[in-house]
Amino acid sequence: MISDARSHPADVAAILVEALPYIREFAGSVVVVKFGGNALAGSEDPDAALASFADDIVLLRSVGLLPVVVHGGGPQIAELLGRLGIRSEFRDGLRVTDAETLEIARMVLVGKVNSEIVSAINVHGPLAVGLSGIDANLIRADALHEDLGFVGNITDIDPTIITRLLAQGLIPVVATVGADLLGQAYNINADTVAGALAASLGAAKLVVLSDVDGIRRDPADASSTIAKITADQLDELVRNGTAGGGMAPKAQACASAVRAGVAAAHLLDGRVAHAVLLELFTDSGVGTMVTP
Amino acid sequence: MISDARSHPADVAAILVEALPYIREFAGSVVVVKFGGNALAGSEDPDAALASFADDIVLLRSVGLLPVVVHGGGPQIAELLGRLGIRSEFRDGLRVTDAETLEIARMVLVGKVNSEIVSAINVHGPLAVGLSGIDANLIRADALHEDLGFVGNITDIDPTIITRLLAQGLIPVVATVGADLLGQAYNINADTVAGALAASLGAAKLVVLSDVDGIRRDPADASSTIAKITADQLDELVRNGTAGGGMAPKAQACASAVRAGVAAAHLLDGRVAHAVLLELFTDSGVGTMVTP
Amino acid sequence: MISDARSHPADVAAILVEALPYIREFAGSVVVVKFGGNALAGSEDPDAALASFADDIVLLRSVGLLPVVVHGGGPQIAELLGRLGIRSEFRDGLRVTDAETLEIARMVLVGKVNSEIVSAINVHGPLAVGLSGIDANLIRADALHEDLGFVGNITDIDPTIITRLLAQGLIPVVATVGADLLGQAYNINADTVAGALAASLGAAKLVVLSDVDGIRRDPADASSTIAKITADQLDELVRNGTAGGGMAPKAQACASAVRAGVAAAHLLDGRVAHAVLLELFTDSGVGTMVTP
Amino acid sequence: MISDARSHPADVAAILVEALPYIREFAGSVVVVKFGGNALAGSEDPDAALASFADDIVLLRSVGLLPVVVHGGGPQIAELLGRLGIRSEFRDGLRVTDAETLEIARMVLVGKVNSEIVSAINVHGPLAVGLSGIDANLIRADALHEDLGFVGNITDIDPTIITRLLAQGLIPVVATVGADLLGQAYNINADTVAGALAASLGAAKLVVLSDVDGIRRDPADASSTIAKITADQLDELVRNGTAGGGMAPKAQACASAVRAGVAAAHLLDGRVAHAVLLELFTDSGVGTMVTP
Amino acid sequence: MISDARSHPADVAAILVEALPYIREFAGSVVVVKFGGNALAGSEDPDAALASFADDIVLLRSVGLLPVVVHGGGPQIAELLGRLGIRSEFRDGLRVTDAETLEIARMVLVGKVNSEIVSAINVHGPLAVGLSGIDANLIRADALHEDLGFVGNITDIDPTIITRLLAQGLIPVVATVGADLLGQAYNINADTVAGALAASLGAAKLVVLSDVDGIRRDPADASSTIAKITADQLDELVRNGTAGGGMAPKAQACASAVRAGVAAAHLLDGRVAHAVLLELFTDSGVGTMVTP
Amino acid sequence: MISDARSHPADVAAILVEALPYIREFAGSVVVVKFGGNALAGSEDPDAALASFADDIVLLRSVGLLPVVVHGGGPQIAELLGRLGIRSEFRDGLRVTDAETLEIARMVLVGKVNSEIVSAINVHGPLAVGLSGIDANLIRADALHEDLGFVGNITDIDPTIITRLLAQGLIPVVATVGADLLGQAYNINADTVAGALAASLGAAKLVVLSDVDGIRRDPADASSTIAKITADQLDELVRNGTAGGGMAPKAQACASAVRAGVAAAHLLDGRVAHAVLLELFTDSGVGTMVTP
Repeated sequence: MISDARSHPADVAAILVEALPYIREFAGSVVVVKFGGNALAGSEDPDAALASFADDIVLLRSVGLLPVVVHGGGPQIAELLGRLGIRSEFRDGLRVTDAETLEIARMVLVGKVNSEIVSAINVHGPLAVGLSGIDANLIRADALHEDLGFVGNITDIDPTIITRLLAQGLIPVVATVGADLLGQAYNINADTVAGALAASLGAAKLVVLSDVDGIRRDPADASSTIAKITADQLDELVRNGTAGGGMAPKAQACASAVRAGVAAAHLLDGRVAHAVLLELFTDSGVGTMVTP
Repeated sequence: MISDARSHPADVAAILVEALPYIREFAGSVVVVKFGGNALAGSEDPDAALASFADDIVLLRSVGLLPVVVHGGGPQIAELLGRLGIRSEFRDGLRVTDAETLEIARMVLVGKVNSEIVSAINVHGPLAVGLSGIDANLIRADALHEDLGFVGNITDIDPTIITRLLAQGLIPVVATVGADLLGQAYNINADTVAGALAASLGAAKLVVLSDVDGIRRDPADASSTIAKITADQLDELVRNGTAGGGMAPKAQACASAVRAGVAAAHLLDGRVAHAVLLELFTDSGVGTMVTP
Repeated sequence: MISDARSHPADVAAILVEALPYIREFAGSVVVVKFGGNALAGSEDPDAALASFADDIVLLRSVGLLPVVVHGGGPQIAELLGRLGIRSEFRDGLRVTDAETLEIARMVLVGKVNSEIVSAINVHGPLAVGLSGIDANLIRADALHEDLGFVGNITDIDPTIITRLLAQGLIPVVATVGADLLGQAYNINADTVAGALAASLGAAKLVVLSDVDGIRRDPADASSTIAKITADQLDELVRNGTAGGGMAPKAQACASAVRAGVAAAHLLDGRVAHAVLLELFTDSGVGTMVTP
Repeated sequence: MISDARSHPADVAAILVEALPYIREFAGSVVVVKFGGNALAGSEDPDAALASFADDIVLLRSVGLLPVVVHGGGPQIAELLGRLGIRSEFRDGLRVTDAETLEIARMVLVGKVNSEIVSAINVHGPLAVGLSGIDANLIRADALHEDLGFVGNITDIDPTIITRLLAQGLIPVVATVGADLLGQAYNINADTVAGALAASLGAAKLVVLSDVDGIRRDPADASSTIAKITADQLDELVRNGTAGGGMAPKAQACASAVRAGVAAAHLLDGRVAHAVLLELFTDSGVGTMVTP
Repeated sequence: MISDARSHPADVAAILVEALPYIREFAGSVVVVKFGGNALAGSEDPDAALASFADDIVLLRSVGLLPVVVHGGGPQIAELLGRLGIRSEFRDGLRVTDAETLEIARMVLVGKVNSEIVSAINVHGPLAVGLSGIDANLIRADALHEDLGFVGNITDIDPTIITRLLAQGLIPVVATVGADLLGQAYNINADTVAGALAASLGAAKLVVLSDVDGIRRDPADASSTIAKITADQLDELVRNGTAGGGMAPKAQACASAVRAGVAAAHLLDGRVAHAVLLELFTDSGVGTMVTP
Repeated sequence: MISDARSHPADVAAILVEALPYIREFAGSVVVVKFGGNALAGSEDPDAALASFADDIVLLRSVGLLPVVVHGGGPQIAELLGRLGIRSEFRDGLRVTDAETLEIARMVLVGKVNSEIVSAINVHGPLAVGLSGIDANLIRADALHEDLGFVGNITDIDPTIITRLLAQGLIPVVATVGADLLGQAYNINADTVAGALAASLGAAKLVVLSDVDGIRRDPADASSTIAKITADQLDELVRNGTAGGGMAPKAQACASAVRAGVAAAHLLDGRVAHAVLLELFTDSGVGTMVTP
């Protein structure tokens, strides 16, 4: 498994000497990792992709970081809706979510995607615990817009249950369903939840794994990926459409997280093996880093 | 809401004097409550039934008991399978569970029934946390029988995550899905899980709520309900068919729990308002109590 | 022992549902209960009255409240003075207390009444510990008036010894003798001590048990008992004599306690069986409640 | 206050060098000190004797020892019985104690002698707490002999309340009244209680202060005081009458305490100023030391 | 070992009664004791002097004080420099310290004098731990004057390592070598270190042991020793030369320590047996006490 | 500082994935590192070698390991003896150590080499604390052989002071001087101390840094270095002289350490940059590993 670099001890030593201070720096720090539903649905080998992601999360924890996983599940929800013959209307790219659709979405997010991620991690030991936003009232929400039905807007985050699980050495895996005071559930954008959760936890890092390698000046040009950007500059790219489409909520989550005190947010290509490790533990990175 | 009894202070005082020692006795004790899927599916007003159940669980916790809820969801699973046009084969009354059926069952148990119970409790505050048996490897399982597919048999229970949540004042709500060492999930009978969990937690009580008022000598005669029975006597009733059908796994769960150290198990009619409170806090009971 | 109410489970359940939230609310709260010397001396069956009172105190503690008992002993002091042929002069209804009278009073309060209450509670277990105000300098006092001799006025309360005993699960029983910096003892009105102690302990409740059923608008009319009154209104009733005689210091203790932060004070008829339980754990009460 | 020894620093240094290791040795150790009622009643200046005793107890505690005071009160009881015209019958030197006598004895022990000792100590600060054997069921007793009425025999000691008060830096002062399971009180010999309490506390020392300077070979010859004696030798002196009269129970308490694990017991003349300090903190002693 | 004073128990008792409150007062307090290199080098029997000093330090600790020893080693350094034929230049009485001289000084202070003091104390048990100012960066220093080479000036004291060792019941013994941020070592005046360390530790006492009996109004007249002096008065004596020569840095260390919050500083003749004990535990002293 | 390996993220990731489990495995483990006096004396740039060693020790601690440094100082002792014109006799390769030689050795080890290592580490922060075996009686010793004078043999190790410093996040640096019960010091072989200390601390690793790259089958052939060897095989190499000379005590220390429970011992070439990191955190090693 080890490459030719092993034949040069000086190179190995250099990498260790570079990595160890980062490990020390982040030990005890919360790192919120957003893992997209596309990563599972769109991968050639979803099981292998999930297992590799689980490996990295377990490695992070093994050296003292406190990872929190947040996930979505759009493709998987669409698939079950399709099987049940339920058709959705879309407004501004958001699925109008009636009661039946919400029930399907919740079952998929909490009872399928979340469970699969927890299972993949727990092959390594009793480490992960699945949560949704209704557990211990983690996420309070109301309707984002009256026309969208049960698409949720975060009104409050109470991260107590997360911090307690972290204190016990556990890895929370969060499905992004919330509820209002009467117990009515809402489905919420996972990027938005990841950003808000990172802020409320005082996380050192927010890492958003998607299927692109960061923000590009020219979306069509892989060599135009931006290594480092401020929140203000990122806002501008969202405004002018450079960071548009599915990248927009990711960009906004990163910008608002760093403004709320998260030291840095990272947009990485989750398809690169061990992208999280490379980003956290080496001087150079593999995606776009957002700073205040 | 208060009945005429309030006009007689001596009666009220007598009830308090009777109840307070029970409250003291059970304070700090774990009580595992099995809440059947039928209670939701079969009730005239499922929302009210669920809210009333949630009230009782919150009251138990408020006076110092440590309730753990275990639930099934058979009718709800059947309903979604029906909508998807999936037909199941049954052997000895058990549904043969292939991979697709298992995925549906898990979505319903974890993503629907569990979430609904957690939501109902959390209207009272950030109290409940939903779990399935894969969280922190709570329930390890393998196949109950090769012909039944992913119907599970409990091989190990690690109640650490439950005891930690209890220690933090939280109410665990457990969906009865487990997994093997490779992460393969199984669907497990909820009565069996409740009994095994009560045993591994050293619970003071196992309370099984169903839609009958306990074990009857003559199933057709409501007046033949048995108030108190030993585990051995109960085994005999299972063997001779008096406690047959759906009552059999409930009876066996009770018998094995008390043999494993649980002080008493109770089979109650969950449709009686506040049945759990009456059973725990008064001298007389409202169902069948099983003792070693 | 249980009344006919038992035949109506719904009534019992209603009482439990009503009582449990109070139990939760008061768990961990300090409740100062003033038990008058008259209750022992004037009862038809003093031993039974004392035993019943002890039962209630033990029940309060068993469900997590922290009861503190304060008592007087006027009739018992008078009885021993009589046997020794010591005659007392009275001014404004207060006994002029010379050194010999003080010694007799202290022996009766600390060596007789206090010991009897402690004994009655400790039949239930090693629960009660008798204290006087000189123990750990709980109550500092000086002379109330130069003409009254060793009748004391509270100058300082140091509740440390009380809070420590409470923290160990014990029930302090306090005889109302204090001392000045030189060790000179004083006999102090027990109602006044109960009020001051409740204030310094941050008690949730002050309960004053006497032989009337609360404050009456017309002292001769039992049906004129006031259910709820503010401290200011109560002051007015003392001023105009409606709450006069022995009721005046009780009323003043209640008023000053609630002004000092005690949530509520209650004047109850200690002759009603379990009056304390009914007052604390039901919606309606059995005496007069004083609020700020 | 300081004698001429002060003019010789070498002498002072020698005394300090001798005393410091004893202080270290006994720091954290329980020392039970029996203070006889005679010391108060028979002294020329009872107030000064009590104050001097209190000084020593406070000094012991100030250097880390854990003193427990046990006291009697025979002369004081006799005095009040006399004033009330109650005559007692004696059998084998023990007062036959009927219910009325017991009530008087308890009032005097708990309400007078105990309170006076507590007061004298607490002039130095909130240090002493008075207890009788009924507090937290410290001393369980039954009748010593059917002919003697309520003269008690110790059946059980539960020193929990003592150890808790000691752990809080407090000085327990114990009046030797106990009770049976029904709450019936008994008056118990104070020397016996002191010995039993020292044993149950695992005390390092039992110090019995009386009005003689130890055990003498010839009771009439002050120069025949025995410096050191074993429990067995002491038994022989009791048997042959050399240690007779009031000395017998003191001797037996010392012998049984050292047999039960107390490292040493001391019989001292409480009239010698600071006798306790001299005995504990210097190489030579001022009375009789009893060893196993 | 004990003088004739033992024949007068009243004298012994008086000394104990005088000493015990001081022991109580200083228990838990830090006492910094400066032990001069002259005490070892100039004593007739250096081994006995060191053993006696160690005895006193162990006795202080045994009764709950927290002694910290600071030492110099001028004569011992001079001796090794002499053997190596290294000659030093002096300016204003201070040795110009080049790199070679510093290395010799450090070896003598840390590897000889410090080790000998630690060894002498540890004959009594595992009590002392040797430190120099570089351990855990206890003393940060820079050059006192460019002409003096590596003679150090204290820039910062971080007493963490001292307080931790004290918390574990250990006796720190400090050699007065410090270092700058780059690790360059400096030799620092031991009186100055003792004063600064006492201040930063919030010590109750600074005790400077030398070979004179305190500050004298007339240096030639032993009877002119000043018993008590304020920091301001002491400054004046330094200014006018009365406290000159080697006494000046001692006087300044005492003055600055009491100004920085140390309750009192003492200049004692270390040759008087047990001088520290006599000074700390008796009303009169054996040297000069400096107060703010 | 980073080599070309950085241009291949997959290689970097592979090294991290390989290293992280080791970091997890050794976090919280004690690693005893023997640093030879030759490393300082024989290096071309002693300051750089010491700084590089200090870097590695600080990095180990930064990722949660608990390093303990043990050092010798033979060349440095020889150098000072030479300057002082002291000639030593040798027997079996060991220097006969009289009192004067011992004093020189102690000054060099404790006051020079130890201080230099502590200084080099503490440039990174207040991390290291120098100790010798006399501190808190860490190492008890007696004479190894009557002909060798004060060459010591370890009789007892009390690692309490080491474990306490480790628990406070500090790095103990140990000079290998011990003492007997009377305080007589001895100079002890540093390899032997390192092995015994590793055993008594229950260390996970003993790392012996010297100027060869491990044990060779043919001492003259660098390519014959043995990667892995058992304690028994190593004994044989010592016996037949393959591991002779200065390698013998190192080999014996490793063999006895692993026999006493240390998981593995490593003989490394301390001149290879970051040899300790490469050995601990990669699959392949850079020297000889000794296992039980």
